[in-house]
Amino acid sequence: MLSKAKIKLIRSLQIKKYRQQEQLFVVEGAKSVAELLNSDFVVELVAGTGEYLSTIDAPSNLLFELDKKELESLGLFQSNESALAVARMKPNESFKPAPGEFVLALDDIRDPGNLGTIVRTADWFGLSRIVASNETAALSHSKVISATMGSFTRVRMFYTDLESYLPTVSTRLFGAYLDGQDVHQVDFNGGGVIVIGNEARGISDAITRFVTDKITIPRYGNAESLNAAIATAVICDNIRRS
Amino acid sequence: MLSKAKIKLIRSLQIKKYRQQEQLFVVEGAKSVAELLNSDFVVELVAGTGEYLSTIDAPSNLLFELDKKELESLGLFQSNESALAVARMKPNESFKPAPGEFVLALDDIRDPGNLGTIVRTADWFGLSRIVASNETAALSHSKVISATMGSFTRVRMFYTDLESYLPTVSTRLFGAYLDGQDVHQVDFNGGGVIVIGNEARGISDAITRFVTDKITIPRYGNAESLNAAIATAVICDNIRRS
Repeated sequence: MLSKAKIKLIRSLQIKKYRQQEQLFVVEGAKSVAELLNSDFVVELVAGTGEYLSTIDAPSNLLFELDKKELESLGLFQSNESALAVARMKPNESFKPAPGEFVLALDDIRDPGNLGTIVRTADWFGLSRIVASNETAALSHSKVISATMGSFTRVRMFYTDLESYLPTVSTRLFGAYLDGQDVHQVDFNGGGVIVIGNEARGISDAITRFVTDKITIPRYGNAESLNAAIATAVICDNIRRS
Repeated sequence: MLSKAKIKLIRSLQIKKYRQQEQLFVVEGAKSVAELLNSDFVVELVAGTGEYLSTIDAPSNLLFELDKKELESLGLFQSNESALAVARMKPNESFKPAPGEFVLALDDIRDPGNLGTIVRTADWFGLSRIVASNETAALSHSKVISATMGSFTRVRMFYTDLESYLPTVSTRLFGAYLDGQDVHQVDFNGGGVIVIGNEARGISDAITRFVTDKITIPRYGNAESLNAAIATAVICDNIRRS
């Protein structure tokens, strides 16, 4: 049985302040919890149905059996049929792109679903590190974790002040605009940083100063813009085929 | 001032049953309402702040001035700063792909945000018609309309039983799987139908029977799959460059 203190802790982790304070976050759903247990994250506890717990390999002192109703009352999601886990955040470690590496830089991606989808997409295309502005949604948000479909275990994020960080990077800096070079023609050789702009305003002027290569996804219809995660995917696919 | 009957009507349109019954739907937010007014949709009413209403060109008997608080209480969105409108649905008209045309076929896209993003993406890449299974989220859902960012006015959707519809189409039928031809190598010449599978299970077996061309977005990392809207975008970009 989960103690009252643990129940209180889990519920408190829906709020960013408490996640920061405890350096813990919640992972919900069978698939995500399984990916977590297969990763190098430190897992503090797994609460799940008896059926689910019998399928996983983890120290028994970390396991707590709950029924579906109790699970749903604990998590953010209205339907959680099997499990949730509490894991320890990794430290927010700075990094520089390695020679030839492609790295995403997120200039204020505010929507948790968009951020989660971007992490999942980066993982598909083999980009394993993302730098994000401090205003970008938190990776530890339940909706972000959920939308990554497990990719949060494989893609490392570093939150920082992009305006201070980007000038210290010596690679090319690609940014998607409406008036750049056709992404189908761009030579991506040599790696670099791909800046993805905010959902409403795109890449800010402060960040545009550092962009060395303006690129554009060609438009054939009438939509004004593409969703940020969609643009990320199309650019990544073009990088990998070039 | 909006009558009590109109307020009741607008609120009822959050529920699919009433949208079907009235053949009306709600459009929220300044940008989406502006796109609606520039389209060939029949608009029943526009409720907005005085400031917003002064910027638009529409018959005055359709306009109703509200303050922000009243607007928010009417719509689905917690923050709607300027306007919402009620519009008449278009009839659910069948169509067949024209020679050379590319059409999306949605095999149970359940998430409203995904559907809206797919419509917006189709519009960007110049695909103006989508056929969708009856289980696909309704275009008239407020979250779908919002996620299309106005593209709902330019992309026509037809809901039907895909299993009955697809055999009547004489074009090629592309479907994304994990074991198809590399999408970078596919010759898309001649147009066709692109089937996009359900978020959880992909393309169903019943639909796979009709697929003539299995295609794959090459993976360079470890994610198990791509989000449905992401896959749509990458395929559309490959279609347009080929």
